[in-house]
Amino acid sequence: MTALPLALTMGEPAGIGAEITCKAWQALRTSGPAFLFLGDPEALQGIPTRRIEAPEEAVGVFQQALPVLTQRLPSPPCLGHPDPANAGAVIGSIRTAVQHALDGRIAGVVTNPIQKSVLTAAGFQHPGHTEFLGELAGTGQPPVMLLACPGLRVVPVTVHMALAAAARSLTTAMILDQGRVVAAALRRDFGIARPRIAIAGLNPHAGEAGTMGREDIEVVAPAIAALVHEGIDARGPLPADTMFTPRARASYDCALCMYHDQALIPVKTLDMDGGVNVTLGLRIVRTSPDHGTALDIAGKGQAEAGSLIAALRLAAEIAQSRARSTP
Amino acid sequence: MTALPLALTMGEPAGIGAEITCKAWQALRTSGPAFLFLGDPEALQGIPTRRIEAPEEAVGVFQQALPVLTQRLPSPPCLGHPDPANAGAVIGSIRTAVQHALDGRIAGVVTNPIQKSVLTAAGFQHPGHTEFLGELAGTGQPPVMLLACPGLRVVPVTVHMALAAAARSLTTAMILDQGRVVAAALRRDFGIARPRIAIAGLNPHAGEAGTMGREDIEVVAPAIAALVHEGIDARGPLPADTMFTPRARASYDCALCMYHDQALIPVKTLDMDGGVNVTLGLRIVRTSPDHGTALDIAGKGQAEAGSLIAALRLAAEIAQSRARSTP
Repeated sequence: MTALPLALTMGEPAGIGAEITCKAWQALRTSGPAFLFLGDPEALQGIPTRRIEAPEEAVGVFQQALPVLTQRLPSPPCLGHPDPANAGAVIGSIRTAVQHALDGRIAGVVTNPIQKSVLTAAGFQHPGHTEFLGELAGTGQPPVMLLACPGLRVVPVTVHMALAAAARSLTTAMILDQGRVVAAALRRDFGIARPRIAIAGLNPHAGEAGTMGREDIEVVAPAIAALVHEGIDARGPLPADTMFTPRARASYDCALCMYHDQALIPVKTLDMDGGVNVTLGLRIVRTSPDHGTALDIAGKGQAEAGSLIAALRLAAEIAQSRARSTP
Repeated sequence: MTALPLALTMGEPAGIGAEITCKAWQALRTSGPAFLFLGDPEALQGIPTRRIEAPEEAVGVFQQALPVLTQRLPSPPCLGHPDPANAGAVIGSIRTAVQHALDGRIAGVVTNPIQKSVLTAAGFQHPGHTEFLGELAGTGQPPVMLLACPGLRVVPVTVHMALAAAARSLTTAMILDQGRVVAAALRRDFGIARPRIAIAGLNPHAGEAGTMGREDIEVVAPAIAALVHEGIDARGPLPADTMFTPRARASYDCALCMYHDQALIPVKTLDMDGGVNVTLGLRIVRTSPDHGTALDIAGKGQAEAGSLIAALRLAAEIAQSRARSTP
């Protein structure tokens, strides 16, 4: 176990967050990493819990019970039916976790899924979790989303926009900025001394010498040249269809992809042991499971905790790697 | 073994075609399916070959030697360096195979990879193999490309065009036409009585109710409604990132995808035992390996025949399924 615990936020109280939290504690109670839950202890069923007053108490408690730093819900959660009355508590859980991380009292933040539409209805101004964390603990650059599963890490350069808009709005500067953030994070967070970054082409066959679109020549290639000039091992633009074969995956440490599905399809096709979402470019360590609130199965006991467990383990690994790289 | 042999074309003589042909014969000589090679027997090294005069001789010969229907090369092949002088023989090999299939003398055509640029330089007028086969053995509709690997079949509705052009040119009619061809082929060629077709959205999260692009509502959904109206089990538009998880893959027989990489990334990420390219909507059975001529490793003994072997096996299965479904 690490010296500091991780903090796990409550996420949407009407979703599967509490259920997978309990399952994750059962899976990790003896092996670690130790974590505390930032939420309402009443939401946790079927496992021993222990209310604590400070993060420092969590590690000593963890093997016997899930430590809970209480964040009360004003409205008792009705599984499957989010209540905007609880939005403040959901956001408060995130804020508190981030503050403890910034204060060095926890090793990192792992977030349960939130229901964005409910928070938005209650006045939440951010497009999502990641942007909110960028405001609370950013570095001035927009945070970068990395998806990881065993044997593959991917980063989508453009994320939540229509495919045509992604093709249109892609710029050399975006690819260059994110390539830099990824290279730095692979060194500091993943302990890879000389990270190898594979950069996907936008078009099929990476445009086949410009016969299927000019973007790979005019937008993607100059970013790669600039990264290489900075001493970063970046290669591409690579045809996206052949860069995720088992042999190709073994040849790089992260794939930088040009749009959402180019990055997410290979990770979810593999679906080994649960993918993990990692936010790069924050002052804190943050991971999350790569699924949503699953309102349709909340309370039915069917939720799988594999992705959350992988997120907790990876957060601990990143925290250890950062500790090693910071003299 | 089937009663009729398959015919395997020579493909680009400077590529890995001859090498994987020999490896495929070694793998299949006892189990079948039996196939004949349409090419120059001199190109085949290290295995016994037998020149035959007619396809009918192939099955009786196959266990002892690879049967060859001779198609001479005017210029001795130099591995790694295609020679336009051989283009006529490459095309002749395809023409002869198709003619034998149309005449009912072989069970189907399996094509080794060609080097399109060399054929184009020699006057070949077609964008590729598939379009040429459409001219020789089409049904009036454009042929449809299906990629298959164990546990997954995919069809890209748009294929070799820039991503922005694919998004722009996608129409309801294209999706509807290809959905019909796919449904018919799954019944006749794959023996699936009531095929289930999963149709991907174009945009991330299938557009998330129109907030990330309108195409999924305006272009894709009407095609699905029309297919359902015709009695076809078509579902979607589905978010492309979650439709290729192991669980999702088990819920349908073919994924109809909106663009090249959306279809090819999951197949090549899995890369189980070699993917196979199947041309639907022809009057003949046609499959091919899903890789190219691999000029860089031609003659080095490193070429893997898994995809060609899978293509031969699948061609035989399709031929048997068609024979069963045709009274």
